[in-house]
Amino acid sequence: MSETTTAAAAPKAATGPGATLAAIRARAPLVQNITNFVAMDLAANLLLAAGASPAMAHAGEEVEEFVTLAAALTVNTGTFTPDWVEAAVAAAAQAVATGTPWVLDPVGCGATKFRLTNATRLAQIRPSVIRGNASEIAALAGASAAQAGGKGVDSTLAADAVLEQAARLARRCGTVVAVTGAVDLVTDGRRVVRVANGHPLMTRVTAVGCALTALTGAAAAVCPDPLRAAVDALAILGVAGQRAAAVASGPGSFRVALLDALYALEPEELDAEARIS
Amino acid sequence: MSETTTAAAAPKAATGPGATLAAIRARAPLVQNITNFVAMDLAANLLLAAGASPAMAHAGEEVEEFVTLAAALTVNTGTFTPDWVEAAVAAAAQAVATGTPWVLDPVGCGATKFRLTNATRLAQIRPSVIRGNASEIAALAGASAAQAGGKGVDSTLAADAVLEQAARLARRCGTVVAVTGAVDLVTDGRRVVRVANGHPLMTRVTAVGCALTALTGAAAAVCPDPLRAAVDALAILGVAGQRAAAVASGPGSFRVALLDALYALEPEELDAEARIS
Amino acid sequence: MSETTTAAAAPKAATGPGATLAAIRARAPLVQNITNFVAMDLAANLLLAAGASPAMAHAGEEVEEFVTLAAALTVNTGTFTPDWVEAAVAAAAQAVATGTPWVLDPVGCGATKFRLTNATRLAQIRPSVIRGNASEIAALAGASAAQAGGKGVDSTLAADAVLEQAARLARRCGTVVAVTGAVDLVTDGRRVVRVANGHPLMTRVTAVGCALTALTGAAAAVCPDPLRAAVDALAILGVAGQRAAAVASGPGSFRVALLDALYALEPEELDAEARIS
Repeated sequence: MSETTTAAAAPKAATGPGATLAAIRARAPLVQNITNFVAMDLAANLLLAAGASPAMAHAGEEVEEFVTLAAALTVNTGTFTPDWVEAAVAAAAQAVATGTPWVLDPVGCGATKFRLTNATRLAQIRPSVIRGNASEIAALAGASAAQAGGKGVDSTLAADAVLEQAARLARRCGTVVAVTGAVDLVTDGRRVVRVANGHPLMTRVTAVGCALTALTGAAAAVCPDPLRAAVDALAILGVAGQRAAAVASGPGSFRVALLDALYALEPEELDAEARIS
Repeated sequence: MSETTTAAAAPKAATGPGATLAAIRARAPLVQNITNFVAMDLAANLLLAAGASPAMAHAGEEVEEFVTLAAALTVNTGTFTPDWVEAAVAAAAQAVATGTPWVLDPVGCGATKFRLTNATRLAQIRPSVIRGNASEIAALAGASAAQAGGKGVDSTLAADAVLEQAARLARRCGTVVAVTGAVDLVTDGRRVVRVANGHPLMTRVTAVGCALTALTGAAAAVCPDPLRAAVDALAILGVAGQRAAAVASGPGSFRVALLDALYALEPEELDAEARIS
Repeated sequence: MSETTTAAAAPKAATGPGATLAAIRARAPLVQNITNFVAMDLAANLLLAAGASPAMAHAGEEVEEFVTLAAALTVNTGTFTPDWVEAAVAAAAQAVATGTPWVLDPVGCGATKFRLTNATRLAQIRPSVIRGNASEIAALAGASAAQAGGKGVDSTLAADAVLEQAARLARRCGTVVAVTGAVDLVTDGRRVVRVANGHPLMTRVTAVGCALTALTGAAAAVCPDPLRAAVDALAILGVAGQRAAAVASGPGSFRVALLDALYALEPEELDAEARIS
């Protein structure tokens, strides 16, 4: 008991996923999301479970004003039409102008010309982080459709298969690129960090990746280094996912358990279970 | 056993949340909702769990015709764009013209000029009930942004802090104003009723407030007094929330349990647990 | 035990719901959905739980290109506005041109002229399957509003009450019509098949019918006979629904259990429990 007590009383890490999660809970940052119709519910609930304050606002008439209130902005192009694209471009430009971190999720950008055009245009507005699966990142980095692979909005590649492309994209856009997969990869074009948390059930629930993008926004709101924010968000969701999978009977109960696990996650336990290298 | 039987056979209250819930189940009113993208799922499921028949219809080409079929209309401005605003205005006017009760939810109306303009315009079309958190009601009543507070779509004030403003708003618009918080407040500008049910986990699940607005529509469909409808809807959801919190492990399981608890709620037990004063 | 082993080792049916479910899992068909805002979450999660790969894409700028990637298309008119109608018409035409099966869900088409016009227009683009409740099918087949019944998006008729109209609609449009109810009915205008699985709780969760439409798309992607695809999708969801109801406490936990049950469903058990006649 005394040893356990000693360990528990040890000073907490000043940085790392535990510190980031604690900061989200302490500051409850307002995260504005311009996201797809499928992801809105889970993204909002994941942000609430993490302790952040989510809002969805996409009307061209208000996006710029809303960004001035927000601690972070996330843009997910999954079900965009041209009016949403213009609103997102305006919001992203306002985020850059006001020094607000913003995160781009180029959903299924390799599937159609319209998606690739939208994602490419947004990627040029200096997002703090671009978060996608391997096929999306390869397509955005300029790979041909055959190289990028992908089936609709799902990836057919592992994250490490696109390391070179992710690093090039990060340097070209002056951003951090987070590639999700069995092992996630985060790079700013110089540094490379891998996160080996998570569970396969996360791919059997819709919008988990999109909700991760929203959580990355919350992390970027409290964490000045975007690479750190992306890594910590991956670790937070990955560890919560592992805990949820341990009690779930399938994708329905997994989604429920994921929110419960995130809500209950202790920063110290998170740091102990995070597999960051 | 005989005593229990006697108690169960006692005459039911003619009014109150139990009678309102029983009437919703008996009549299954069609409630038309023009609501935000985040809330649609939970609002529809909450109405179904309560025994009502939900429908979402917002196209300008059909809203007026749809209102003629509906027993109540609810309008939630959370993710509105100008086309949705015009459809909602037409629907609200049709509701007034046909004597159909309608409920307004001015989500985050203090956050941007666009939201405040939309909510103010709709509030002038004689809603039966306006349902919001304290920051939203304060903003709609004319408070400055600094007075109204609010963080995006979340409130930073307690309900009782805006009693004066709520009463003024109710009188000015000829409506009932329901302010949700730890203790809820309902007023028509003369009478004031408080409801002290509910649980803090309700603020950790997205769209619970929006879904309450939908439930208020169902209550207004079966209850001629809008103040009574608003109070009863608050008590119904609040008691269901308390029961759900007793079995939930976090916000994920709370949302699931909330629907189960509402579905299973017995009118007599509801009346016994409702804290209305 | 030996008998059980023998039974388990018996050759699997080459056709039937078990074979269809196994084929969905083996091929993970990309199913593109142009569906309503309420249904997107459950439709995507149901497709994932079944083993398919869902995508939502409705922008006029990309629908035709997206259809060329998809193994099936589903169109649900529940919350359509004119721009969505045009995109759906273009997508459906592209599906026919490329030999891609497509499924129409005419939600609440008897409620307003706008809905009936949209559904009628789409029904003329040779859908592989039209899936609706009895009131929707009656309205689409040309019944008057009084005959078709319906309350908003809910039916007030049993499936068998519209057998004649369903068969006529199927012949007129050269399609298969699936009418859901306590006992479901599927007809191509000549053959009639009934499916007697399912549970009443399926009507207490929003968008279960819409999600069935999405699942019918997945079945049509792997099953060349549309009548067989419609029947198998009904049996798959119906058996999963029965299993979910056996462990659920209400509509909240039923929805969770439905996804878990579908994910865990064994083809052999499915064939044993399916009640197809």
